[in-house]
Amino acid sequence: MLNFTVGPVMSDEEVLAIGGEQVPYFRTQEFSDIMLENESIMKELVNAPDSAKVVFITGSGTASMESVVMNVFTPHDRLLVIDGGSFGHRFTELCDIHHIPYTAIKPEQGHVVTPEMLQQYDSKGYTGLLVNIHETSTGVLYDARLLGEFCRRNNMLFVIDAISSFLADPIDMTSVGADVIITGSQKVLACAPGISIIVLGEKALERVWSNETKTMYLDLKSALKNAERGQTPFTPAVGILRQINARLRRIKQNGGAPAEIKRIRNQAEDFRHKIKDLPFEIVSESMSNALTPLHPTTASAHEIFLELKDNYGIWICPNGGELKDKVFRVGHFGSLTFADNDTLVAALKDLQDKGKI
Amino acid sequence: MLNFTVGPVMSDEEVLAIGGEQVPYFRTQEFSDIMLENESIMKELVNAPDSAKVVFITGSGTASMESVVMNVFTPHDRLLVIDGGSFGHRFTELCDIHHIPYTAIKPEQGHVVTPEMLQQYDSKGYTGLLVNIHETSTGVLYDARLLGEFCRRNNMLFVIDAISSFLADPIDMTSVGADVIITGSQKVLACAPGISIIVLGEKALERVWSNETKTMYLDLKSALKNAERGQTPFTPAVGILRQINARLRRIKQNGGAPAEIKRIRNQAEDFRHKIKDLPFEIVSESMSNALTPLHPTTASAHEIFLELKDNYGIWICPNGGELKDKVFRVGHFGSLTFADNDTLVAALKDLQDKGKI
Repeated sequence: MLNFTVGPVMSDEEVLAIGGEQVPYFRTQEFSDIMLENESIMKELVNAPDSAKVVFITGSGTASMESVVMNVFTPHDRLLVIDGGSFGHRFTELCDIHHIPYTAIKPEQGHVVTPEMLQQYDSKGYTGLLVNIHETSTGVLYDARLLGEFCRRNNMLFVIDAISSFLADPIDMTSVGADVIITGSQKVLACAPGISIIVLGEKALERVWSNETKTMYLDLKSALKNAERGQTPFTPAVGILRQINARLRRIKQNGGAPAEIKRIRNQAEDFRHKIKDLPFEIVSESMSNALTPLHPTTASAHEIFLELKDNYGIWICPNGGELKDKVFRVGHFGSLTFADNDTLVAALKDLQDKGKI
Repeated sequence: MLNFTVGPVMSDEEVLAIGGEQVPYFRTQEFSDIMLENESIMKELVNAPDSAKVVFITGSGTASMESVVMNVFTPHDRLLVIDGGSFGHRFTELCDIHHIPYTAIKPEQGHVVTPEMLQQYDSKGYTGLLVNIHETSTGVLYDARLLGEFCRRNNMLFVIDAISSFLADPIDMTSVGADVIITGSQKVLACAPGISIIVLGEKALERVWSNETKTMYLDLKSALKNAERGQTPFTPAVGILRQINARLRRIKQNGGAPAEIKRIRNQAEDFRHKIKDLPFEIVSESMSNALTPLHPTTASAHEIFLELKDNYGIWICPNGGELKDKVFRVGHFGSLTFADNDTLVAALKDLQDKGKI
């Protein structure tokens, strides 16, 4: 199957080979060395300050989102949450569960957060802002610089879930002033799903150390203590962490974040150029390089997903909920080539010829 | 490396091959079918009642332990916890974090819980009992039947963490009256680490549905709702779940739980026979087939671990904390053969010849 979803995506040969190897025992210096290198390259790729720390959680991106909400914030905070789609909305649900007061900023579907929308929240005593910088459900990339400036002038903690944006779009923890960046193994890192990653800056770390422990599995204190020697509190997904190591090393070797981002941008631009004649509308005013969100004007988005899966050996990414029939998404990361774009576009044109779109 | 740890362990060729394959997109009927089959075979292997449900958590065994503590119990409960080693102790820490009252029963290290030890807790208003049925840190297998009878006559919920005992020792959810059984992907299932599994009986399910939601990632309500159609609330470790599927099918085909348990028992007995002349004391009065806990009388346990790792290409399982120098453990699950036992015993005899043990 040719995989254009937004994760899990297709891995390269090197990552696949590691998946096929025996998983080593991990309470060893050998595994610690791998983990310390993972931390170091992750910091480089997001341009984290030296004082930042990296935690690898065995779990989905949501595990890391919840871990950050539980460890960095308390009911004494007052947060702003960018709620522009199902992933942004998840942050509001996490705040509800953990009794953390918040105000949701709700940009219209497909639209960004503007300076005007933020203005009314200046100097109102908010203590932090949570955003999925690329709202993966609708394909809207928010402006990290704008949000970062807002947080800086209001002395707020700035949490970026960059799960599908990391290495697809430029992100600079230091220059935007982010305190937390979250990502996962199965997006641009293109490894098997099962690991999510949290980069924590100094202000977030101070919060973690001073807050009460509310969970064992998602506790960042024990994760940070173990991470100092390259270990984890509990048996992690060792195999996936080894895959991540290979990918991080390779990305670094091939020119770092800028080169990887360029590769994905080219892949996205090639696809967007090739679909110009198809009856699809782009439904985002600010796209990430990670994916293209498309509204088919002549057919059900979900039907197209099923057709491609069942009759062409191609996965695109369906949506759930109210977007199920309206929007499908085409991912541009993982081991994809321009030729793969040709294959997908040919299949779509074939569906058009058959009157199905 | 030859791996005699207690996880991750060596996988068979079939499981490794899946690890080397591309991870498929999972919001599909094809993946749902795999998950529904995983649930069905898991229930068979523990002889769960028809009404039982199975949840697959992307996380370590501790994630499932915490999930059960958070979802099944509340501060209105009063629990008994068997605290005979570091894994049993973890249940007490989870109860502390989540404000669930408990009494710890502390058998001496290496010893089981006796009927006499339980007697004093009869008719005292306890509502549940938590046990790591095989205290993996010290290699003590508790008597599930004894604990189950105690719970039944006191109308208590009975939670068995069987992480390293499942498929190494007989376990029958129905006949011992267990309400919850927990295990993980990297023990006898011998897949990559990253998935833990919870089997929930009717009484536990009632608790889950009536209790307040305290977590998103470890919430069993949303996991159960999604599991009905073979899905998970968040992106799971899809690759490992596919490995689990292959293993479960193979175990079923090869004679089910009894055949797998017999294989591991034979492996354990062969090893225990072959080390009779070495200067090791067995430190458990009731061993699981899963592992042999050994106290070397003439050398540091941790030194032996390092010697075998660095000079013989063999991992045995070290201990942490106060047992670090006193006890090492030799696991008997994963793709091990009698010839592998010979290799390990020969290495140990070589260390003896060199005066190192």
